[in-house]
Amino acid sequence: MHDEIAQRLTRFRHALVSSGIDAAIVGPSADFRYLTGHPAASSERLLALVVPQAGETFLLVPELESTRFSETLPFSLRTWKDGEDPIRLLAAHLERLGVGTIGVNDEFWAAFLLPLQAALPTRNFTRVSLILQALRRIKSAAEIALVREAVARVDAAWQRFCASEHLTGRTERQVARRLTELLLEEGLDHVAFCIVASGPHAASPHHEPTDRIIQAGDPVVIDVGGPYHGYFADLTRTPVAGSLADPDFATAYEAVLEAQQAAFAAMRPGASCEEIDRIARDVLATHGLAEAFLHRLGHGLGLSVHEPPYLVQGNPERLEPGMIVTDEPGVYLRGRWGLRIEDVVLITAEGAERLTRAPHELLALP
Amino acid sequence: MHDEIAQRLTRFRHALVSSGIDAAIVGPSADFRYLTGHPAASSERLLALVVPQAGETFLLVPELESTRFSETLPFSLRTWKDGEDPIRLLAAHLERLGVGTIGVNDEFWAAFLLPLQAALPTRNFTRVSLILQALRRIKSAAEIALVREAVARVDAAWQRFCASEHLTGRTERQVARRLTELLLEEGLDHVAFCIVASGPHAASPHHEPTDRIIQAGDPVVIDVGGPYHGYFADLTRTPVAGSLADPDFATAYEAVLEAQQAAFAAMRPGASCEEIDRIARDVLATHGLAEAFLHRLGHGLGLSVHEPPYLVQGNPERLEPGMIVTDEPGVYLRGRWGLRIEDVVLITAEGAERLTRAPHELLALP
Repeated sequence: MHDEIAQRLTRFRHALVSSGIDAAIVGPSADFRYLTGHPAASSERLLALVVPQAGETFLLVPELESTRFSETLPFSLRTWKDGEDPIRLLAAHLERLGVGTIGVNDEFWAAFLLPLQAALPTRNFTRVSLILQALRRIKSAAEIALVREAVARVDAAWQRFCASEHLTGRTERQVARRLTELLLEEGLDHVAFCIVASGPHAASPHHEPTDRIIQAGDPVVIDVGGPYHGYFADLTRTPVAGSLADPDFATAYEAVLEAQQAAFAAMRPGASCEEIDRIARDVLATHGLAEAFLHRLGHGLGLSVHEPPYLVQGNPERLEPGMIVTDEPGVYLRGRWGLRIEDVVLITAEGAERLTRAPHELLALP
Repeated sequence: MHDEIAQRLTRFRHALVSSGIDAAIVGPSADFRYLTGHPAASSERLLALVVPQAGETFLLVPELESTRFSETLPFSLRTWKDGEDPIRLLAAHLERLGVGTIGVNDEFWAAFLLPLQAALPTRNFTRVSLILQALRRIKSAAEIALVREAVARVDAAWQRFCASEHLTGRTERQVARRLTELLLEEGLDHVAFCIVASGPHAASPHHEPTDRIIQAGDPVVIDVGGPYHGYFADLTRTPVAGSLADPDFATAYEAVLEAQQAAFAAMRPGASCEEIDRIARDVLATHGLAEAFLHRLGHGLGLSVHEPPYLVQGNPERLEPGMIVTDEPGVYLRGRWGLRIEDVVLITAEGAERLTRAPHELLALP
């Protein structure tokens, strides 16, 4: 992986040249990890990799973070101390370089961008993440192996949960807590999200776990994920607590599964992202559930849990071998329940490979 | 707390008027939680509270997040669907309002700010967080109670750790994992950070836990924290594994503790932030340790773990009753060890109250 990181920086500098971006500023983000191999978290202290088309690449880093980056790296360090103004240091450097167009990463904070624009009022600022996303969306063999491993570990945690845990009578938070423990035991770096949405709460796709006690008959949307060595897995299943209370749910479950499988069957190099989204949406429409499918079909994943390509209407981008995407249709009926089934899929030369192994069948847990 | 949130929005709109900001855009952040009472996480889907000086305040929200915000709120919701362009919706709205100066929060992503600037090229963009920070730095009684509770829960977890756990022979990651469990058991919303930095690793103030096995004699910097109902606690202690190996460490420990207590003794309304930082720095200088103190003395905390006021050289801001700050000098000797002692302190009418109860004395854990 270490050689690969040095190659990424070279490819990135070539892409800067062809895009007419004179220098890039990449703060803490998946883009940063992609270029440096190091994780970093955004904070009020400016930390950024500065990559000019030509000339020295360096990491502008708060002194107290600098020892974390002291191993051999393909760039130098320039530290600043608490009480100094790093924006002034950065602006002066960019001025000396004589750059005209400066690219910043998507997650770069307005707290830094606005003062930098004020210090360099005649320069043009643009999104350098568009270039990095183009590099990142096709995964290398090493990256695919890490996503595969992340997915396998989440699958293992889910299998253990299904084998030995109950839902009925526990709160959403208690279930989330237990799932978190299992995911950490399986070796994830951390648990990035753990949605447990029961009964009517399941109608909110991004529900946060509460103290609601899960009732017998409730569908429970469980959507968990996190990174392994930085690379993400993402899994959603919707078991029922006890036995099924609402026969409409079983019908909708079959419809969502049919939509998910139809989308998977259509995934291959050359298929467009909007076309795959449309296929799932059309299946749900035939079941009268089009309006209840509140979100896009899926998203790319890798160093970010959500990254291009997005499987969404209006996105004509075509799938290519080495892309990794989620396939996750859902239906959400406000006041009643919701459901989602999500797999991680690798686009291959021949078509697509489902990396997720968790079974799809409607599951009743005690 | 609910009435308090409605009052905050009113105060914020008054502050926009007096600052000449025509409309504010506040994305997921502590500022957002302060104004809405709701947590939200940044993602590639734009979510923002739009607050004009006059006229309708509304939440621009992705449809799949909207049900999370459907309870009674002092503002309306405008949803957008996957596949739509929320920047276009937002720019058109701001255009209709005829605003000249637009404020965005500090954590607002360049991915949104740059396209919004491009869509509204004649408008002036500025940091609205400076206004929100001025409101947020003085805590209400309800906020102080929540920080107090967060600190008490972290203290309780630390006390349990000291009473029953060992360091020697465990990896940093194992210790971090156990501390995380204890902090969650004590009821924190989540564990935001858990630094366990042993032996030479302790010389890096923001070290990430590794698989290094803690050796007898190692100093171990342990810095943990997280929110309770959104309000943060932050605690650092530096116990020794087994018994002390390096007598220089004990000397440095006394110096850091002396610096910490001297700063605490000087905290009162009217004292400047830089003056308090200087007092701690001067104590360490008398022990020949000035160069080894790599960071500012402390930071405000509340809905963010780091927020103004910062106790740092060059900050003339004066302490006021209701501010909550950390007092955390440290020394870091590269290749040897490091140490830090951190309390949370409330500024009162009379002086200062230490909210942290964990003992200061140098502690040896098995």
